[in-house]
Formats: sequence, structure tokens, C-alpha cells
Amino acid sequence: MIKVGIVGGTGYTGVELLRLLAQHPQAELHAITSRADAGMPVSRMFPSLRGYVDLCFTHPDETHLDQCDVVFFATPNGIAMLQARALLEAGVRVIDLAADFRIQDVAVWEKWYGMSHACPGLVAEAVYGLPEVNREQIRQARLVANPGCYPTAVQLGFIPLLEAGLVDTAGLIADAKSGVSGAGRKAEIGFLFSEAADNFKAYGVPGHRHLPEIRQGLARVAQHEVGLTFVPHLTPMIRGIHATLYARLKQDADLQALFGQRYANEPFVDVLPAGSHPETRSVRGANHCRIAVHRPQQGNTVVVLSVIDNLVKGAAGQAVQNMNIMFGLPEAMALTNIPLLP
Amino acid sequence: MIKVGIVGGTGYTGVELLRLLAQHPQAELHAITSRADAGMPVSRMFPSLRGYVDLCFTHPDETHLDQCDVVFFATPNGIAMLQARALLEAGVRVIDLAADFRIQDVAVWEKWYGMSHACPGLVAEAVYGLPEVNREQIRQARLVANPGCYPTAVQLGFIPLLEAGLVDTAGLIADAKSGVSGAGRKAEIGFLFSEAADNFKAYGVPGHRHLPEIRQGLARVAQHEVGLTFVPHLTPMIRGIHATLYARLKQDADLQALFGQRYANEPFVDVLPAGSHPETRSVRGANHCRIAVHRPQQGNTVVVLSVIDNLVKGAAGQAVQNMNIMFGLPEAMALTNIPLLP
Amino acid sequence: MIKVGIVGGTGYTGVELLRLLAQHPQAELHAITSRADAGMPVSRMFPSLRGYVDLCFTHPDETHLDQCDVVFFATPNGIAMLQARALLEAGVRVIDLAADFRIQDVAVWEKWYGMSHACPGLVAEAVYGLPEVNREQIRQARLVANPGCYPTAVQLGFIPLLEAGLVDTAGLIADAKSGVSGAGRKAEIGFLFSEAADNFKAYGVPGHRHLPEIRQGLARVAQHEVGLTFVPHLTPMIRGIHATLYARLKQDADLQALFGQRYANEPFVDVLPAGSHPETRSVRGANHCRIAVHRPQQGNTVVVLSVIDNLVKGAAGQAVQNMNIMFGLPEAMALTNIPLLP
Amino acid sequence: MIKVGIVGGTGYTGVELLRLLAQHPQAELHAITSRADAGMPVSRMFPSLRGYVDLCFTHPDETHLDQCDVVFFATPNGIAMLQARALLEAGVRVIDLAADFRIQDVAVWEKWYGMSHACPGLVAEAVYGLPEVNREQIRQARLVANPGCYPTAVQLGFIPLLEAGLVDTAGLIADAKSGVSGAGRKAEIGFLFSEAADNFKAYGVPGHRHLPEIRQGLARVAQHEVGLTFVPHLTPMIRGIHATLYARLKQDADLQALFGQRYANEPFVDVLPAGSHPETRSVRGANHCRIAVHRPQQGNTVVVLSVIDNLVKGAAGQAVQNMNIMFGLPEAMALTNIPLLP
Repeated sequence: MIKVGIVGGTGYTGVELLRLLAQHPQAELHAITSRADAGMPVSRMFPSLRGYVDLCFTHPDETHLDQCDVVFFATPNGIAMLQARALLEAGVRVIDLAADFRIQDVAVWEKWYGMSHACPGLVAEAVYGLPEVNREQIRQARLVANPGCYPTAVQLGFIPLLEAGLVDTAGLIADAKSGVSGAGRKAEIGFLFSEAADNFKAYGVPGHRHLPEIRQGLARVAQHEVGLTFVPHLTPMIRGIHATLYARLKQDADLQALFGQRYANEPFVDVLPAGSHPETRSVRGANHCRIAVHRPQQGNTVVVLSVIDNLVKGAAGQAVQNMNIMFGLPEAMALTNIPLLP
Repeated sequence: MIKVGIVGGTGYTGVELLRLLAQHPQAELHAITSRADAGMPVSRMFPSLRGYVDLCFTHPDETHLDQCDVVFFATPNGIAMLQARALLEAGVRVIDLAADFRIQDVAVWEKWYGMSHACPGLVAEAVYGLPEVNREQIRQARLVANPGCYPTAVQLGFIPLLEAGLVDTAGLIADAKSGVSGAGRKAEIGFLFSEAADNFKAYGVPGHRHLPEIRQGLARVAQHEVGLTFVPHLTPMIRGIHATLYARLKQDADLQALFGQRYANEPFVDVLPAGSHPETRSVRGANHCRIAVHRPQQGNTVVVLSVIDNLVKGAAGQAVQNMNIMFGLPEAMALTNIPLLP
Repeated sequence: MIKVGIVGGTGYTGVELLRLLAQHPQAELHAITSRADAGMPVSRMFPSLRGYVDLCFTHPDETHLDQCDVVFFATPNGIAMLQARALLEAGVRVIDLAADFRIQDVAVWEKWYGMSHACPGLVAEAVYGLPEVNREQIRQARLVANPGCYPTAVQLGFIPLLEAGLVDTAGLIADAKSGVSGAGRKAEIGFLFSEAADNFKAYGVPGHRHLPEIRQGLARVAQHEVGLTFVPHLTPMIRGIHATLYARLKQDADLQALFGQRYANEPFVDVLPAGSHPETRSVRGANHCRIAVHRPQQGNTVVVLSVIDNLVKGAAGQAVQNMNIMFGLPEAMALTNIPLLP
Repeated sequence: MIKVGIVGGTGYTGVELLRLLAQHPQAELHAITSRADAGMPVSRMFPSLRGYVDLCFTHPDETHLDQCDVVFFATPNGIAMLQARALLEAGVRVIDLAADFRIQDVAVWEKWYGMSHACPGLVAEAVYGLPEVNREQIRQARLVANPGCYPTAVQLGFIPLLEAGLVDTAGLIADAKSGVSGAGRKAEIGFLFSEAADNFKAYGVPGHRHLPEIRQGLARVAQHEVGLTFVPHLTPMIRGIHATLYARLKQDADLQALFGQRYANEPFVDVLPAGSHPETRSVRGANHCRIAVHRPQQGNTVVVLSVIDNLVKGAAGQAVQNMNIMFGLPEAMALTNIPLLP
């Protein structure tokens, strides 16, 4: 059994980790910390876990995370970088669901996240945890930077086109829509029901923190810098991301076959039949990414539709997938729940 | 392996049966019928099932349901009664998720459902599939009448009070609120998003078909007729029922202990700590019923709050629970998915 | 023109007052205060008001509210009681949308609201602003306590029964459901979209602050104390309250005629035809209360369904209605917007 | 007073016309037809109109629409073209809210709408009712083709860029999101609450009927053909369209000033301050279009955000605006309701 610790378990990615790991046959929940709610049974905060999780939140200072085999950070940005080194030195593997180790260029990271990086020396070692690109490195990794939700949906949609060199990479467009849980479980007026329900808006158009992460990932695949316009939107649903991607074709190609082949062996990427329109609810609660590729009116603009559950493939599910890879387990273990529809 | 057939698989209870049974270690999906959609892959209609269900819908006339061990009817009222006898005679067990066999008094059934009963002779044999009351009979049953969604939530909330003879049974009140999926997957204007969203209303106040079912169940427990006012409401959520129950206490009692003891050994009924308010989302996608009992201002009115997922404990989940009991399997098999929250 | 001041304009009742008063032909918005957002244009916080409201929020200490003819308090509880006396002495009329002056028994108020009352001497003078009961006193009032949202819906539904002495007043039940805007525009986790959407729950069952207010109002009408069980619920919609009321009939009566006659001359109470089920959306954005009365199965339990928009008839609209009465204007002035449906 | 007739009043654009026209000081509702619901009071179907609209639906064959001054067609496509000629010959002006007269090239229309045009001879006379482009022609028109909802939002966002010749018109992209009421009040499974809530999807990516309408409108403004990729999406809200528009700049420009000047005198187009993100709720129930223009990271991709209420500026409100223009009334008459927020 893998002894698991979770730092910061009172947010949505924390409770989602608990939902997945509580039924993982090879994982044993060892500790879950919360500075504010230490002592409270986890299932009092989240009654959905009654009967499944018996732990109480513990104070981080009183929790021996170094006794774990792996620690997940489900914390705000800037926490994992303070604790990762000590854990790694104690032989604990670390999966950070926040952004601390996602950007290889520390200066870029510091600019977008507005803080100094506490352990820049570890950044180079961190493996970007997108299994569809980095599976082998993840297998060897001590420290995994779990991708952001938007970056997962957008990269999985663009990768086949960029690897094949089919599109003009100077003018990529990612128009992405997220459910409100993407904003986390924090008390902010803008995410109140009465503000976010029955409403739709873009946000962060001048610049969103996921932009450099996506650009880095696409550049790696394309093997050169890319030009990307990224516009996130808030849509009145709880879970789900829908990325609508636009690129200009430089040459003709069988796009359906291209996508089908690229993801043929991927357990969690599902290329839909030609003409499909994936719905976010078709992945609700599950670790799948479903993708459709279109070429409207046979013009030179390709449109890719990519959906994930932001809390699963966009966060906790992908983190468990990474854990499975790191520990040599079947990659889909504990990730085969069928999406909840309706 | 139990060979399973499903009649009428294109509705919400049908797809929910598929979600649960596709991961049942002792069940094998043999056939799923649909008159209108025969030939279509199930996963084309419900992409959430891609990779989990390979069946196509088949035409009922071309489906050998008599080769199944058990057949679920996820059909409108009035279908199961036409086919149950032949299946039973072929040795197939039958679980009807509709109302055909729920009411023991056929005349009452015919009045409320507006049709003649096609096989009244089977009604007396049918076992009402509420395991918390009828577990032993279900174990022996060939034909199970799976309870309605409202009746499940309401009965589980009232049972401890009635069994203990603590309340005035002449003036029971059940104020129940249902998510829209309770209305089924049928094209009716009243259940369009633009009609049902951001809106709340009562319906069926003069008389709802679940009233005689609830009254019958409560009378059985109380061992005499009961007086019940039942007011259902439509609330803008997909899944979930919240029953708020009112009764007048005839004598003092430790209500918290009463409920706790009554359900201490029930795998799917969870009595919350004193002072709690169960949320429907705490059972979303799961077979649990969560209950809290209150006595506001220490007056003589007891208030019980009871929540279920109408498609799980209120339909498909309870049906699988009944199947497990009928076939001697662990009662919770395939029913241990953790509720999806948020 | 009536010079109007609003204290605390950044909440939902504040912006709703602005929406209504900005198009009131006899009102002139003089000032709107906000301690936190002084200096900000109102229409920057609420872009829906662009082109209709040119004011900026001003700091309360720098605002000459004593130059107004009337001041609305759209503040948390406990603010109006600090400022009302000075305004009244300056000849300003005061309408408090919070609870400071609603409860005549100051000890009861202090118990439920958990603070000392700062000016108990004014409580007796305050008129409870439910025009359907107190129209004449409102006409003469200097200080109006605008009713709470639940109390408005519940009282209007019970009044005809109580005035006629038809029901057992010892066991009244009010099962009420509110949209989330009733919780106000404050950053609390429980009212986040991801917490409140697709979810239904009761709250405050042991005791809610609107209970003593409703009890007081019903007692006044019944001319004796009443026994009331009040259970509020949170339902995933923005606006709207649906009260489902239960009472036991002591004698037979033509309930439809009773309600029709009681409200025949009321501009904002609409008794629906027999057999109706009012929807909250039928009053969305409007000052109406729609009511239906039922007697299921001709039993002795009467069921009243009463819907309002909690921000209009349950708050700002009723406040404007009171202002119109106080200043001798047509009662419906600026309150004739047609509900927004769908 | 202008005598107004409405053909097909049981859909969402019909009831929205009623909401607006019932309070229009210069309009008198003369008749509203419905083949299916003739004889029923309008306010029985739409209780929100109780007290405001006394009409009953009448059968089209028994309604003297030729006595009206203007007739609105709030019908499915293909109805207005059957009746427009007779009405025009009787001196009645016609405003078609459907698509019959929107496309000048009849062959294109017939291809996209899948039917033969019944009166192609009138198409050339019809004026496309987008006041921001065609105000003078509307003033003289007998027959107005009221624009589609998506086309209104998209054209108003692109017009300043195209008129100024600033962008590459070969690769325009319109990523648009609509509330569910855009699908109309028809019983279809895909628009049920349980299908559309908590879900997001694209649709019609291979080709949507609004594509040729938008292309025609943009070509007129650009004075040459344009290349447009148009992807509509369904978002779980009742009302609202959010269009996110992308174009490549050919030269530098002060985009904020450009938009501000273009719409400086438009009563219903509101250009927000630089850096803004318009929300659909900021126009809920109102005839406004709010627009923001961005140039992320000072690159050469311009992003325009444009929001309308699909039932108001995208349908009934724009139709009333056109009526006001046609009859020489103040353009904003009956269109000054403040948006409903929250």
C-alpha cells in the first residue's frame, strides 16, 4: 500500500483527491492537513465522504508527512515550493496540483505569479505531469508538476496538429469556458451563486496565468515558440471545461485519422467520431478528455473541441494518474468511475 | 455471472442502471431494448458510457429476454404488467422500476394510473422493494416492485416515528422537492431548461400518484390507515429529492436515538448528528439516504429532513440493491461510489 | 420630487432599490453611501445601471442624508437603529429594509439578533410596513420597518385564514424555499455557485430570525398567540420565495372566495384561479405576490402556495410601495414592470 | 396609437414582444394568434402577464390582421413569407422575427433553410433591421427582416473593425455562446433542464444557419466577401449571448477610441471602458449591447467581447426598436427597462 498525504484538503481539488483515493485499492490515506480546520473530521466538512473517510484534518506542523510515500499539494500557489525539498530529501515523492513547478523559466513564473520562487533549484527537476506527453519522465519523477485545468484541455486538443506541423503556430486561438469550481472553494463575491448563475462572461483577457503554461507546453511539442491568444470564460456550471481551439491549416490532411492515431493508445483521451460535439457532462466526475476535430466548410480553419472535468483530468484525477505511473501501478487504477449523466 | 436485461433503456433510470451495472462484478449486461432506437449503440446516445458499454439497443420483439436471469423494466407505467408473467414463467426474475406492481389494491391503482391493470393476479405476489422494510421478502421474491422516488424518501423519514407509535398519524405532512430528472427524459415544454431553471413551483397538489403508494407504505408500518398531505415541488437541479416531513408528537422521546437505532444496521441509511441539515448533493450519484431529525423550539412538531438521489436510491440504485438481495450477493455490491461533490 | 438617500447601496437590496427608484417619476436619487466603496461610480460596480444612474457611492460621514425627504437603509441589521433618531429629528422619513424595528418586543429582538438595541424608544413608533395589513398607519408613519422576505410571503398566505378564524392556530406550518440572493451579497463559502447550485437543503430548522417576526404578525391578525413551525430552505435559483403553508381547518368554507375577497382591492396580491400552482418566475423582478389555495382530497388540511420575488415584494419593491404610501403617491408608481419570463 | 398584431405568440419571442408592447405608450395590442391555443387567455399560458395583457389567443384564420398598422411574425421560419404580401398590400407594415427575409440571395437562403421561398419577389424590398447600420432604410421600410440573435451580437462587435479596414477579413472567428431560450419554446429532449443544465457544448460547427446571415452583413460593411468561422455553443443560462470575436490586425490603431466613436450616438450600444469584460446579466431583459475591445499582450490579434439578451436586442426588443423607427417614434420608447441584476 502507498501511504498518501494531502496538504490542504479543504478545497475542491482536495475533496476530489479524497473521493478518488478513498477507493484506490493500493493507496492508504495517511494524513490530510488543514491549518484552519485541524481537528475537524473530514466527513463533517464534506458529508459526501461519510462512511468512506474517517480521518480528521491535522495541523501541518503536527503531521509527519515525511512518513508518506507520496504527498499531494492541493494548496494555493506558493506553498509546495516551501516544503517540497524537505519531503524529497526524506524520500517522499511530491505531486503539486498548484503551479509552483509548472513553468521552467523561473523569471516568467515570478512575473505571472507575483512572488519570488522559494526553491528555483527544483524547478528543472520537476516533471510536467501530462502523461500523454511525458509518460516516461513521470515514471522516473520524484517531483511532478500537475498541469492546470485549462492547459490540460488546450494542450490535448492542439498536440496532434502541432506534432504533425500542420498549422500556422503564430496565430493559435484557445477560447476556453470553465465551470465555477475552477475558481476554487474560496469566499469571493464574484463566484457567489447570485453572481455567477444565469450569467456568462470572459475574464482575464489581458493575460491569464495559464497562458505561459500553455505556451510552454505547445512550444515543447512544436519545437519552437508559438503565438497564442487565450481567452477564458466563466460559465454557470459546477464542473467542466470546454476548450474551442482554432488554427489555420498550412496543408491538407485527414484530421480525423491524425487525432485517432495520436491517441489510439491513450486510456483517457477519447477521439469522438467525425461530426461530433463533445459535452462537458460526458466526462463529469471522470478522468477522460473527449475531443472532436472539425474543418467547417472545408476551409483552412481547423476547429478542435476538447472537454474535461476540471477537477478530475484537470486536477485530482490527473494527479492520481501520475501517482499510478510513478508507482508502477496500472495507469487507470481508481480512475474508472463512469461519468455521472444526467 | 447474472445475465441482466433492461427494457426501455433510453430514459434516465435506464442510463443510470447501465452506469451501475456496467461496473457490477457479478452482472453481465445481456440486452437493452428500445423500440425507437433499436440498432443504435448505447454509447452513441449516452457518450458518457463510451468505453464502458458496448451494447446496441435491440428491438423488444427480437430480444430473448427469457434468457436473462433478471430483467429490469425502466419503462413508462403500464409496460411491465404486459410482459412480467411470461418472463416469470420462463424463470426470469423481474424488477419493475415503474409503478405497475406497487399498489396492492388494484382498484386504487387503476384509479390513480388511469388504466386497467393487465395482470392483477401478479400484484399480490409482487414484493415492494424497500429493503429497509422488506428485506426478507425481497430475498425470496420473483417479482419486485421498486419504490417510487418520493415514496422512498418520505417513508424512510417517517418509519421510525410510526413504528414507535410516537406521532399523530392522522395529520402527517410531507413537503417534498425534486430535481427535474424525476420527470424523466421526455420532451415536454414544462421541463425545458428555460421553463424549469431559476424557478420553483409546487405541482400536483390536488393529488399526485405517489400519494397512495406512500399512504400504503406508511399504513403498513403503522398498522392502520394514516392521513397524509403530500405536496411535491419542482426545484431547479438535475438530481435529488429533499423531503421535509412534519408530524405531531404524542409523547416525549429521544428522537435522535430512535432514528440512530432504527437504521444502525442499514448500509444505505445515514442518520446525521443532531442539528444537521442534509444536502441533496451529499448523496449525488450514490445510493444513500441521509436523514436528520429536529424538534424546533422543543415544541410538539417533529421535523424530519430526508435526502436521496432520485435516480439512485430513488430508482436504479435501489433496483440494483434489490437485485443483490434477490441473488444473495453483498447488498452494497456496485453501489459504493462516493457521491460527487461539488 | 422626493429626495431619496440610500444607506448601504452595494448589496442586492441596494441595487434593487436603485433599479426601481432610477425610473420613479417622483423620486430623485440624492445620495447612496458605502463605507468601503466611497468614490466609485455606482455603475462601475453594477454595469446594469450604466446610463441610468450617474451617482458615485459616498462615504456616510460625508453625506448629508438629513437633506433627504426619505432615507432607505439597505444595510445589515444593527445600522439603522444607530442613525434613525437623528434623521427623524431632522424631519427625514426612514424606511429600514433590515430588521431593526420589526419586532415590537425589544427583548425578543435582542435575543434573536444577538445585540442590544440602540434605540428601543423608537421601536413602538415604527410601523410594520406590510401595506395589506397596515396601509393607514404607513400613510402616517415617520419610520417604517420593511418586512422580511419570508415574513411577507408567509403572512400574505396565512392572513385570510387567520382573519376568518378558520384554522387551528396552534399548529401552523410554513415550509419556505428561497433563492440564494436572499442571503445577500456577502462572500461566504456556503453561497458560492459551486456549493449552492444543483443542491437543495433546509437550514435554520432549530430557529431562524424570521420566526418571531412571522409569529408576531400572525398573532396580530389572529388576535392571539399562534404556534408556528417555520422551515426555510435554500433552492438553486437567484430570486424568488415559495412558501408552502399548512393549516388544519376547524370548519368548512369557500376558501377560493375567501382569498379572492380578502385581496380583491390589493394592487400587488394576485389570487390565482382554483387549482393553480404559482411559479416564482411569474413574479421575477416584480412586486406581486401570487397565491393559490388548495384543500387536497377535500381533507381538513388547507395548503396555501404563496410566491414573491424576495428582492422586490420581499424587500426593495415593498419599500418603494411604502414610500409611495407615505408620500401620498399612487401606490404602484414605478412598480409596474412586468415580470421577466422566461 | 399603433395597432399591433402578433402572429405566433406562444413562443419566447412572442411573450417577450407582449412584455415590451404591453407597456408601450403608443402601441395597442390588437390581436395575437396561435393555431394551437386559440381561445386561451394569454395570461393563462403566461401568468407573468396577469393584469397586463387581457387578450386571448385567436385563430389566425379568424383574425383580421389587415386591420393592424404593423404585424410582428414571431413564428418559425417559413410562415411570414406566406402572409407578408397580402398584409403589405393591405397597407400593413411587417416585421419578421424569423429568417424569411434576412438573406438577399434566395438560392443561399433555400440551401440553408431547406425549403423553397414562397415570395422571393419581396426579398429585395425587405430591409435588414439592424438600426446601427440601416436606420434610414428602416425608417422607410414596409417590410423589415429582424436580425437573428447571434448575427446581432457578432455584427455589432465586428462592424467598427471592418468599417475601418483594420483587420484581415479572410480569417474572422466568432466564438459565440447562447442561453437556452435561443432554442425557442419547443419540446425537444436536447433542451430539457436535465440535459442542458450543468453542461456546456458546441453545436452546429459544420454549419449553422446564422453563418450566411452574418457573412452577408459583414460583407456589406467590408464591401467585399469575408471569411468567417462561426462556432455557436449552448451554455446553461436562460437568456443571453456572449460573442467572443477574433481578428488579425493589419495595422496599429486606437481600438478603444474607434469603438467609442462608432457607437457614440447609438442609444443601445454601450462601449465599456478599456479592460472591461461585459457580463450577459448586465443586459438581462434589456435592449442593450455591451462591447469591450482588447488586444492581449499587444499582439496582432484583436479580441472583441459583445453581449446581448438574445430575446431583447437579439429578437423582440430590436423588433420594437425597428417599429419605433418605422413609425417615427423615439427610438427607445418602451425599451428603457433597466436590466435585471442579480
